[in-house]
Amino acid sequence: MENQRIRVAITQGDVNGIGYEVILKTFSDPTMLEICTPIIYGSPKIMTYHRKALDLPVNFTIVGSAAEAVDGRVNVVNCNEEEVKVELGHASAESGKAAFEALEKALVDFGKGGYDVLVTAPIDKHTIQSDSFRFNGHTDYLENRIGGGQKALMVLAKDDLRVALVTTHEPVGKVASLITKETVKERLIQFSQSLKNDFAIRSPRIAVLGLNPHAGDGGLLGSEEQEVITPAIEEARAEGVVCYGPFPSDGFWGAGSFTKFDGILAMYHDQGLVPFKLLAMDEGVNLTAGLPLVRTSPDHGTAYDIAGKNIASEASFRNAVYLGIDVFRHRQGEKAIRRNPLRKSFFDRRDDSDRLKKMDTTDEQ
Amino acid sequence: MENQRIRVAITQGDVNGIGYEVILKTFSDPTMLEICTPIIYGSPKIMTYHRKALDLPVNFTIVGSAAEAVDGRVNVVNCNEEEVKVELGHASAESGKAAFEALEKALVDFGKGGYDVLVTAPIDKHTIQSDSFRFNGHTDYLENRIGGGQKALMVLAKDDLRVALVTTHEPVGKVASLITKETVKERLIQFSQSLKNDFAIRSPRIAVLGLNPHAGDGGLLGSEEQEVITPAIEEARAEGVVCYGPFPSDGFWGAGSFTKFDGILAMYHDQGLVPFKLLAMDEGVNLTAGLPLVRTSPDHGTAYDIAGKNIASEASFRNAVYLGIDVFRHRQGEKAIRRNPLRKSFFDRRDDSDRLKKMDTTDEQ
Repeated sequence: MENQRIRVAITQGDVNGIGYEVILKTFSDPTMLEICTPIIYGSPKIMTYHRKALDLPVNFTIVGSAAEAVDGRVNVVNCNEEEVKVELGHASAESGKAAFEALEKALVDFGKGGYDVLVTAPIDKHTIQSDSFRFNGHTDYLENRIGGGQKALMVLAKDDLRVALVTTHEPVGKVASLITKETVKERLIQFSQSLKNDFAIRSPRIAVLGLNPHAGDGGLLGSEEQEVITPAIEEARAEGVVCYGPFPSDGFWGAGSFTKFDGILAMYHDQGLVPFKLLAMDEGVNLTAGLPLVRTSPDHGTAYDIAGKNIASEASFRNAVYLGIDVFRHRQGEKAIRRNPLRKSFFDRRDDSDRLKKMDTTDEQ
Repeated sequence: MENQRIRVAITQGDVNGIGYEVILKTFSDPTMLEICTPIIYGSPKIMTYHRKALDLPVNFTIVGSAAEAVDGRVNVVNCNEEEVKVELGHASAESGKAAFEALEKALVDFGKGGYDVLVTAPIDKHTIQSDSFRFNGHTDYLENRIGGGQKALMVLAKDDLRVALVTTHEPVGKVASLITKETVKERLIQFSQSLKNDFAIRSPRIAVLGLNPHAGDGGLLGSEEQEVITPAIEEARAEGVVCYGPFPSDGFWGAGSFTKFDGILAMYHDQGLVPFKLLAMDEGVNLTAGLPLVRTSPDHGTAYDIAGKNIASEASFRNAVYLGIDVFRHRQGEKAIRRNPLRKSFFDRRDDSDRLKKMDTTDEQ
């Protein structure tokens, strides 16, 4: 399994941003093709435009679908039938439509088992909206489109720092009402499973942040910690999740406590993203956990302000490819381990004679 | 003025926490007495207890009030008539009362012009509550007690990083409703004045953070940016405040944009405090701007968990003393500059002849 090349689908995202720049920069390093076979869902024409504009000589092969993808090559699937005018640094309806078409074609191929990992380049959340796409971003859309009832969990990762969010793209005014015991508990269980299955951490330790300043300061600055978060932690613990908190967010990050946990569960977007981006700089990756598909993305946006200037860092995108591959391998490993489980033997540990008796029985089988 | 020793009042805060430890550690360095004359509002007995427990040999002089304070000595004013039992690491009603008595006595002396700067050691926000103290902390209490109708502004500072908050110790569920155009504008004007008068920055540039994820993403993730924050920025600009934004908080901190501004206005506690504490580590200082009194404090709490262990860092407390002195000097300098202002001449810049005419008039006076 380790030697097999992982098939990584990549969606072009918004063609007026830095998407193609980071894709091309990543695959201008030929050693990338030794660890994976990229299949870019986009447009050979637009890719050629960016390649020329940025002087990034990457050769590619046009294929009809993931099934035709060739190992050792950068494969491109044409998803945009109509002409798309590239306007670097500008939002355009055409570009939004092109981004959506690429995403859709990639998901059709996923349904056919065409690839192992999906890495999405950033979209413009405004221009992509249409009757087919009314979501705050990739995560919500994928949950709805291919989740099969499962909930997606947004995890930000860089090295040993892994941050998951209870609420994601919600206005601050709505956050408190969305923090319920059920949601926090569900997120804890999901996060724990993701740390085990996706990151191969056997017994992950999770820190839970409070919602309010000073984690409510014993009820003085808000009651959610006492009424919602603490009970959720206790219930998750009863189900085997190793979790602690709620911790006052400012002190938790300021005192470096985050280094002592495998995962950190933040209550809302900026509580998790601000410290994560400060610490991860431009190397962080966003993983959508909890879905059948392994999906990662860089933790930056379209960056219209620097589009076409050839100054975007591809570090986050490259790390997204790496993390996607790692997560896929870990999930396969997990499946392999569980394929032929040993028959569970229920020993009564207080009675040696009985124990020996049962061991005898097991041996006979 | 530069050679005069600044009189720095220090309140003991909660006697079961690390307050006395950081005070004693700060003044165990004799050079501190060359730049200021400390007047500790607390209890000589409790101070002796901590001094012995922590083996920090600091000599002090007991005085009746700030008026009696001696330069070159650590002065202590006894504020606790009753016996106070020190229980390191534990919250106690006695300690809360002792903290309040010290604060009150210090404020009485401030009314008599007894000192220049107040540095407060951390209190326990629970045990200090009484009929005389029903506040979320020092800042609110001081605003009410000595503000004379002026509003306090919480500013966190370390070197060139200065963060002010629109809302401070409020539950997240209330934050959105407290972000009004009037409040944001008022905070911007206050912050700009503080950067000028307290930090001696002639033309401060302020960055304003958005409230919602991605600063609302053009209305997709919340409307406060468009309806409240942007109009407030525009109105503040019209009044001469140099301010920009609203910026998406995660990207602002992650991309290092904070280094390009003299001040950053955050909408709520954790949005400002999380990145501030990550960047300032244990060296940050809290300044209460906007009040007649210069008040600073370390940016940590009572830290019951490490009380009496002699491992607390005094860096933040020492920086609080330094910043208090700096702010006092800057305010004095500002006052000196404004004492004899030049008469303002209103030139009509479009008409040179008129301008010259007016200049002549000015010369005659």
